Amino acid sequence: MNVLIVYAHPEPKSYNGAMKDIAVRTLLEQGHVVTVSDLYAMNFSPVLGVGDFPEGLQDPSCLNLAKEQTYAYEAGTLSADIRAEQEKLRQADLVIFQFPIWWFGMPAIMKGWADRVFARGFAYSAGRKYDTGLFRGKTAMVAATTGTSADTYAPDGIDGDILSVLWPVHNGLLRYTGFDVISPFIAYMPGRMTEHMRTARLEEYRQRLQNLDRTPRLFFHPAADYGPNERLLPGVLARSGIQRNV
Amino acid sequence: MNVLIVYAHPEPKSYNGAMKDIAVRTLLEQGHVVTVSDLYAMNFSPVLGVGDFPEGLQDPSCLNLAKEQTYAYEAGTLSADIRAEQEKLRQADLVIFQFPIWWFGMPAIMKGWADRVFARGFAYSAGRKYDTGLFRGKTAMVAATTGTSADTYAPDGIDGDILSVLWPVHNGLLRYTGFDVISPFIAYMPGRMTEHMRTARLEEYRQRLQNLDRTPRLFFHPAADYGPNERLLPGVLARSGIQRNV
Repeated sequence: MNVLIVYAHPEPKSYNGAMKDIAVRTLLEQGHVVTVSDLYAMNFSPVLGVGDFPEGLQDPSCLNLAKEQTYAYEAGTLSADIRAEQEKLRQADLVIFQFPIWWFGMPAIMKGWADRVFARGFAYSAGRKYDTGLFRGKTAMVAATTGTSADTYAPDGIDGDILSVLWPVHNGLLRYTGFDVISPFIAYMPGRMTEHMRTARLEEYRQRLQNLDRTPRLFFHPAADYGPNERLLPGVLARSGIQRNV
Repeated sequence: MNVLIVYAHPEPKSYNGAMKDIAVRTLLEQGHVVTVSDLYAMNFSPVLGVGDFPEGLQDPSCLNLAKEQTYAYEAGTLSADIRAEQEKLRQADLVIFQFPIWWFGMPAIMKGWADRVFARGFAYSAGRKYDTGLFRGKTAMVAATTGTSADTYAPDGIDGDILSVLWPVHNGLLRYTGFDVISPFIAYMPGRMTEHMRTARLEEYRQRLQNLDRTPRLFFHPAADYGPNERLLPGVLARSGIQRNV
């Protein structure tokens, strides 16, 4: 497999750094090809805007990002840093996102990697999303750390179910573009772990990486479960437990 | 009231720009004091890192962000751009976040505003979160646009309930730090609206801004509903409809 690890932490000695390092080592040992996008080390710019279109805008009078992305992607004129990341994604069978959960989401440098690299034309286009997404056949996994406990991220925890917190990443970024999504690997509160606990949790991560094929994928409703307005069909809804309000 | 509008869009002629403009006008007409942080115009840097600590690190051997933030906030040595935004927040009674939903969340430039400005010591500290959050007494509201329809963001829609998509912002960033959170105002797919629809939706936004006092706040369980492990007490859980798994 070709594996891309997208990694966002400013401190190489951090627990995120250790998770990234053990992932690289473990995956190489298994014979995979591993590429790391170390966003802080690359000084990756996370701000989607006119800079993404260095050859100028199709319509300089009003910046329409989706239109400019579509044109520039097809013309091969997106900025070089975006094209380099898109090529890594194109090659990848598996993408791992390694990051600390800051304010219930990705660090801005990684969110902006998504904003810029997952450009229209490359990552989605008319009629190509979810089951027909452009990255169909690829697999992705979140590997993340938190500042609070596993209890706070339980379904009845004060921070909310970790799968709710990660819904924008899992469904929004990954499933939307066609990825199969492996259950996330979360290291809760590494800052409060003893050295023994830190080592043990890294070992668990190593085992996870050795057993990705046998790790459950997250469930998302297939396209056939939705009606033409992209809402669940009545029969599916009745079994889902979701309350339809309006 | 002092109102801070944090605004993220690179195109002033965008629908987000129009929403920001009508908010400024409407709130001024009502006699409020309005400040706008136009993050693209400010060229705001969204990358939390060593640059936030221009006087150097307390421990240069290993960057511990929470510790460095706490120290620098108390010493008044966070970088000037962060201190300026913190002062605006300190003054604000109401904060409006105006942004396009990109990949199910804030644009990176706004996520990074949160990562950097909501520093430990200023926005949270030991024992100061949710009901005892440091921004208690302040109110916040999301005003956003989408690229897909309201149906897709229904509870049974393919993109997921808009309140689930915004949970990391509403609960994670805002309620966590003590804000009361007003129901979001969402303009769905302005890119597909006719001129008449655009104008009508802006008028609805104007009316929302004139009636903020009467607009419902989002519900979050009070601290008393949680046990010492920060999970809902059994009696509350039974009434909540949440499935406890584990």
